[in-house]
Amino acid sequence: MARTPSRRAGRQERMAARAAQGALAAPYTIRKTGLFSLINDEAVAIIERNADRILDEIGMDFRGDPETLELFRKHGARVDGERVRFDPGWCRDKIKTAPRVFTQHARNPARSVQIGGDAQVYAPSFGPPFVHDMEKGRRYATLEDFKNITKLHHQLGAVNHSGGVVVEPVDVPVELRHLHMAHTHLTLNDKPFMGAVTAPERARDTVEMCRIAMGREFVDNNCVLYSVVNTNAPLVMDETMLWALKEYAQAGQCTVVSPFVLGGAMSPVSVAATLAQVLAEVMASVALTQLIRPGAPAAFGTFFSPISLKTGAPTFGTPEGTQFQMCAKTLADRLGLPFHSVGGLTAAKVPDAQAGYESQAQLMGAALAGVNFIIHATGCLEGLLTTGYEKIVMDADRCSAMQRFIGGVDFSEAAQAMDAFFEVEPGGHFLGAQHTQDNYQTAFWMGDMSDNGTYEQWAAEGAEWQHERASARVKQLLNDYEHPAMDDSIRAALDDFVARRTKEIKGGHT
Amino acid sequence: MARTPSRRAGRQERMAARAAQGALAAPYTIRKTGLFSLINDEAVAIIERNADRILDEIGMDFRGDPETLELFRKHGARVDGERVRFDPGWCRDKIKTAPRVFTQHARNPARSVQIGGDAQVYAPSFGPPFVHDMEKGRRYATLEDFKNITKLHHQLGAVNHSGGVVVEPVDVPVELRHLHMAHTHLTLNDKPFMGAVTAPERARDTVEMCRIAMGREFVDNNCVLYSVVNTNAPLVMDETMLWALKEYAQAGQCTVVSPFVLGGAMSPVSVAATLAQVLAEVMASVALTQLIRPGAPAAFGTFFSPISLKTGAPTFGTPEGTQFQMCAKTLADRLGLPFHSVGGLTAAKVPDAQAGYESQAQLMGAALAGVNFIIHATGCLEGLLTTGYEKIVMDADRCSAMQRFIGGVDFSEAAQAMDAFFEVEPGGHFLGAQHTQDNYQTAFWMGDMSDNGTYEQWAAEGAEWQHERASARVKQLLNDYEHPAMDDSIRAALDDFVARRTKEIKGGHT
Repeated sequence: MARTPSRRAGRQERMAARAAQGALAAPYTIRKTGLFSLINDEAVAIIERNADRILDEIGMDFRGDPETLELFRKHGARVDGERVRFDPGWCRDKIKTAPRVFTQHARNPARSVQIGGDAQVYAPSFGPPFVHDMEKGRRYATLEDFKNITKLHHQLGAVNHSGGVVVEPVDVPVELRHLHMAHTHLTLNDKPFMGAVTAPERARDTVEMCRIAMGREFVDNNCVLYSVVNTNAPLVMDETMLWALKEYAQAGQCTVVSPFVLGGAMSPVSVAATLAQVLAEVMASVALTQLIRPGAPAAFGTFFSPISLKTGAPTFGTPEGTQFQMCAKTLADRLGLPFHSVGGLTAAKVPDAQAGYESQAQLMGAALAGVNFIIHATGCLEGLLTTGYEKIVMDADRCSAMQRFIGGVDFSEAAQAMDAFFEVEPGGHFLGAQHTQDNYQTAFWMGDMSDNGTYEQWAAEGAEWQHERASARVKQLLNDYEHPAMDDSIRAALDDFVARRTKEIKGGHT
Repeated sequence: MARTPSRRAGRQERMAARAAQGALAAPYTIRKTGLFSLINDEAVAIIERNADRILDEIGMDFRGDPETLELFRKHGARVDGERVRFDPGWCRDKIKTAPRVFTQHARNPARSVQIGGDAQVYAPSFGPPFVHDMEKGRRYATLEDFKNITKLHHQLGAVNHSGGVVVEPVDVPVELRHLHMAHTHLTLNDKPFMGAVTAPERARDTVEMCRIAMGREFVDNNCVLYSVVNTNAPLVMDETMLWALKEYAQAGQCTVVSPFVLGGAMSPVSVAATLAQVLAEVMASVALTQLIRPGAPAAFGTFFSPISLKTGAPTFGTPEGTQFQMCAKTLADRLGLPFHSVGGLTAAKVPDAQAGYESQAQLMGAALAGVNFIIHATGCLEGLLTTGYEKIVMDADRCSAMQRFIGGVDFSEAAQAMDAFFEVEPGGHFLGAQHTQDNYQTAFWMGDMSDNGTYEQWAAEGAEWQHERASARVKQLLNDYEHPAMDDSIRAALDDFVARRTKEIKGGHT
């Protein structure tokens, strides 16, 4: 178990150099491969007809907001109490004003991302109240965790987004959390991020902080926030989500409508039925964004986890989860909406093999489905109840592999390397061939977190399991972290805004 | 950390019941999904032209067997020493007699597998000299390990094949190993298996043992052995492999020609160039099988692992590995040959998260590529230097998930479940719906090795990582193992054969 300090140091230096490279990586990936779709034209027609029928004959509840109901009525939907019903084709028609492709601007323009088309954006997990690391185990997350995780994502080149509630900072009062989260995203990372959806005034505060950081006029005319609004499946949008949707749509910011579905409980126990339900919920809700502000960016989101019909627990990395996602992408394409869905989900409690198998299955499914915005690509443990520190860097490595994969195969004359065959005799080797010398540094993807060496070398370096190597990498990244550049006056204005709003909110002014 | 014995027992019973079910599972899976291909017609034409040019201008060495060279010369290939060159189109023309689809018969007819077409067969790892389990760590494998592993694969429903050298039984003299391996496959498992390729007399012994188990006439007229012959890339087939190929082809048994390529060392450092090289090697070698016995079953195999151009070590679960496989499948389809390639490979030394990520990536790539025979689907550690006991049951669970995935999505009227939407109000739940009651037991895939429960329950049950649960499952399966039925006289004849041949071989008679 002896460890060679010098070798260890060399490895850390290489890792740091790699991380620095990563920080300059492309802000998103353009997919050059085809899509893996599982739904043919006939089945598409069935699902679309079923969704239309659900919206026409059953309808969807929009709760707690008479203004929304009035808006729907004015534009020809059939409103009965809080239940809204739609003639077939009505929603599809309204959705036409939403852009197929748009840019979410980061405060660092080099980090801005394309949403939709052939672009693929990889983003952190959203929502966990707990964090886990190998040293301290599982515990409630704090603002310090939120900041650490944002620092990690700033450094990881394969992660294109700073995310939203990367963990719940439970040591901060609920009504102040959105201020600290937006402040952290804007100051400790320069990638784009997500807006709060827990109350309309919190959405307004988040937009206001973006105006401070990026200029009022710019924010009023561009998408700088990307916010996920979950329906309460089946067929309900509640007051909180409705208000967030309205705030962001009015501000011209992106709303992703993502029905959160535990299949078998919140939808019927099949992929085909859940597709129709989710399509119905998304069509009605995205139509609303366009009634509020035609042209406001929106996306078709899905979160589908089949429940274990033995225990009722949600399951992840399942065949049905990926089947659902691949079919839903086709439905989103037909609506002309960018498609947002889940990445590396797992039910594992710790960064073990289960975490690896399930997260890779779900992430690879998302990559091959052509998901445009892959949320929960890094850090998920325990079905999003926990974000794992080690899991973040382990997942980021696999995001990088998937990005390379969807970049496609190079069939250029240089890549064909016919000269090499004439240079190397049968039975020889290509290590010294000119083509190898010219290309070896970039020819094949290289991960940071896999140990590919011999057993003997691995044993001599401490016989570390991947989560142990990941612990070391997390520490190294946090140690090496440097703040992204920000104008002092902007930083001061953001600090002032948080201080002022904190005082107001504590004083009872929302 | 208290453990409830009764709950634990219940779980083990459920697992045993599941394993019993598994043992009766379908012998292989028919893929109902499309293929994920990464090569378009233009690129196919480039690769095929390059392969033709390699065979025409450079040629391939067939070493140590004048008879083969004479056979090639007689049929019009250009022989120069041991180098054989081929006119463009010559190999492709000869390959036409190989069957597109064939059956490999198991001694239990219910276990026979289809090779080719839309069938997918999942098979164990091949070749590791070491085994690993959590209790005893890594050590040289023995015949007892070989037997244990064969018992596990007999019980695991998602594994369709008993494999070949599932581990090297290093406590048995090299010249006797093939006898014990074939005896084990034939007596402890009733699924189909693979033949020895290390010497022609060992191939003959293996065929002879199949004749004892399945009848001489049957074996002479049907494929009962599936054997992998590796070229020595680049562009060499050595004496040992050549002789094995000849033995099996003459006996009408299947030969898979699978160039073993560490990309960057044994082929140029690109996917495009390696594809041309592998296509050339496979075409020339499969053509030989057809010269020996037209109509003998054959398959197009690949094993491509990009080497780390920093350390020279092979890497697994990489984007290029999967890209290569998906492109090669298209090339195999164009030759009309079944396609054989790798499944759950990993460089991990232990059943950790790296093992999970890498194995899932490679296995999912194989499943979506439409690989007909997925070798190394279970058990791989350390890039096939080690078979892991826990890894076998962990991987088998993911094979089962992939099989469900490629079964496709059910869009039938029953699966659409429109009645359920009229039964459950918006905001309600579907747990009690008639459709759920009717379908919940089979609606969604359920794994054996994932813990999907709550953190609290998981902690109360011992906070086991997946490899710890896998250890328990391995013990349970070995404990529950029952011999498959075999006629006493056949068993006695097999025992006699092994005893007689052992005496002969020790006496110097091969």
